[in-house]
Amino acid sequence: MIPFNKPHLTGKETHYIYDAVNTGKISGNGKYTKLCHDFFLKRFHFKHSLLTTSCTDGLEMASILINIKPGDEIIMPSYTFVSTANAFVLRGATIRFVDSRDDHPGMDEDKIEELINEKTKAIVPVHYAGIACNMDKIMFLSEKYNLFVIEDAAQAIDSYYLNKDGIKIPLGSIGHLGVFSFHETKNIISGEGGLLVVNDQQFKNRSEIIWEKGTNRSSFFRGEVDKYGWVDVGSSFLPSDIISAFLYAQLEELDQIQKRRIEIWNLYYKELSECCKANGIRLPMVPEYATNNAHMFYLVFDSSNLRSKVIEKLKEVGILSVFHYLSLHKSPFYIEKHDGRTLINSDRYTENLLRLPLYVDLQDQEVLQITHTVREILNG
Amino acid sequence: MIPFNKPHLTGKETHYIYDAVNTGKISGNGKYTKLCHDFFLKRFHFKHSLLTTSCTDGLEMASILINIKPGDEIIMPSYTFVSTANAFVLRGATIRFVDSRDDHPGMDEDKIEELINEKTKAIVPVHYAGIACNMDKIMFLSEKYNLFVIEDAAQAIDSYYLNKDGIKIPLGSIGHLGVFSFHETKNIISGEGGLLVVNDQQFKNRSEIIWEKGTNRSSFFRGEVDKYGWVDVGSSFLPSDIISAFLYAQLEELDQIQKRRIEIWNLYYKELSECCKANGIRLPMVPEYATNNAHMFYLVFDSSNLRSKVIEKLKEVGILSVFHYLSLHKSPFYIEKHDGRTLINSDRYTENLLRLPLYVDLQDQEVLQITHTVREILNG
Repeated sequence: MIPFNKPHLTGKETHYIYDAVNTGKISGNGKYTKLCHDFFLKRFHFKHSLLTTSCTDGLEMASILINIKPGDEIIMPSYTFVSTANAFVLRGATIRFVDSRDDHPGMDEDKIEELINEKTKAIVPVHYAGIACNMDKIMFLSEKYNLFVIEDAAQAIDSYYLNKDGIKIPLGSIGHLGVFSFHETKNIISGEGGLLVVNDQQFKNRSEIIWEKGTNRSSFFRGEVDKYGWVDVGSSFLPSDIISAFLYAQLEELDQIQKRRIEIWNLYYKELSECCKANGIRLPMVPEYATNNAHMFYLVFDSSNLRSKVIEKLKEVGILSVFHYLSLHKSPFYIEKHDGRTLINSDRYTENLLRLPLYVDLQDQEVLQITHTVREILNG
Repeated sequence: MIPFNKPHLTGKETHYIYDAVNTGKISGNGKYTKLCHDFFLKRFHFKHSLLTTSCTDGLEMASILINIKPGDEIIMPSYTFVSTANAFVLRGATIRFVDSRDDHPGMDEDKIEELINEKTKAIVPVHYAGIACNMDKIMFLSEKYNLFVIEDAAQAIDSYYLNKDGIKIPLGSIGHLGVFSFHETKNIISGEGGLLVVNDQQFKNRSEIIWEKGTNRSSFFRGEVDKYGWVDVGSSFLPSDIISAFLYAQLEELDQIQKRRIEIWNLYYKELSECCKANGIRLPMVPEYATNNAHMFYLVFDSSNLRSKVIEKLKEVGILSVFHYLSLHKSPFYIEKHDGRTLINSDRYTENLLRLPLYVDLQDQEVLQITHTVREILNG
């Protein structure tokens, strides 16, 4: 039996949790939260990090920070997780969904500008499968129309954008704000968990306030005010230090985790590329301006029937593969609110994309078993 | 050195976390989440429990469930934590703050009705220090004016309301919805954590959807629908099973924890009552319709100068005592939005209430040292 995902443990998680528990400080913003924030600064030069209880919560913080009000419009892909949209819908925004690219499930950067109007407040690019959107195009539109950019980097830890000068810029650090997920299905995990990265320093102080339930508690502990009180809206966005302790153990092993995931990804690619090309099945595309963090290995079939057949046949031999998002513009919640445009690529990925097992503890032998089975199904 | 609070460990927390981590299911709604939900059902007859990442998040779920819209009014005490208010302000509500009782920091049940109008949507009683509000009075108003009641039972685990027939009803189970906190300062802890209790079954299905990010994932796993999608607003309200594992270890020891806290509370009361009465200082009041879960031991002075003096003198001998809330109607965030009524009792508790150390591992000898010092300051 090969599951679709299996959370990988570095071995230090429970050790650090034990330490956190025994320090007696297990609410938010403790020792391990600070260690994680320091890690993000050193490793990715994230100037201002705030761990959150989920990536969803990071998106909600972003939505509050840019002052979303009823009637504001947000541009994002339809082929994404519900939280990308819900965080803004909760504040009253209308979502203008963009189609996916023909060659990649990420949003088509050339179809954004036509949706911009005086109500548009922000663009939310989702780095699907950890693969960068074309951030030059998006940041150009941001500057031209004075829009915020919030990078949904849920799947994009340790993934980079290669700018025109060939410099690697960590995803999540390019837009005004960026968010990451540490849900157990991601490369780096803490069960549930997330991160808000504040790149535009105008948001720095307020992000701390919103994180601390709308109080100026952080200022109080820095000695800047003599008591703290209610100064803004906010929520309890900060995770227990138990969660941060787990996360820190994972971050310490980031290089090893990434190395192994990339090996697996490359093995999949090598074993499947010839057969897939012969059968008109698309493999993941990595543009020249993006790096690959091996978050996901997927195939895009030319019909949903074939996808269903592959899922079934793999399941028969104990291999679990899964499809991914359902177009949000066609969801029960939004279909009546959507402006009616057809988004053919988003629907195509909804119908035809298949994800294969990819986790650190997946053995080469298992990958070969999976790829052998896939080839048999396709050629048979 | 005697701290104000020290999280108590039962010893099983890291053991259960280790188990949760090793099952490989550490995202939300796993084994320990279900064990906690079962515990609440068996112990308190909570029909439908949903663990949350914080009590704040439980309140936000309640606010979404009762469909708060801009212009709606919510009635709650001013002497409470910011999250009681923020959860509703985030959805656009206006807060009508009620004064505290003269004899207790909880809200004055006789001052609620005068604030009710056609915009009023809900009453949010806060069971301050775990001591019940007069729920008969509040539920009478709820029925008379068709208002929702959301019990903020953040501090009120294992505390009860004694109804007219003398029957003990667990706090949190009386209103339409109830919320609890498991922050490290509470009787039962998980670092950060909370619980939403759904008593009015009209909210049952939708509460699961909102909990699962606005998707019908729970229905999917029960086989009621063949795939799950976006059907409503929602957020990632569910905690990692790591947090639930910690919480379950605490819940198993609830009786021992409560027994010890009540012993400490009674010792404080015995040692301080005579001296405080002689000096015009009020001790906690427990109405005849309430039980005491020993969440907090506090003194109410007749001046803030005396409170400051006691805090200082205790600090000099290494004992940390703290004040509590600041009236929300006078906060920087709400003072201009408040309707201008003066709330003298709320302000009095803001200025004059002092909390003494109270945690399971506080020794009798330390309590006697604290009470001895307090008496010396007051008599000296």
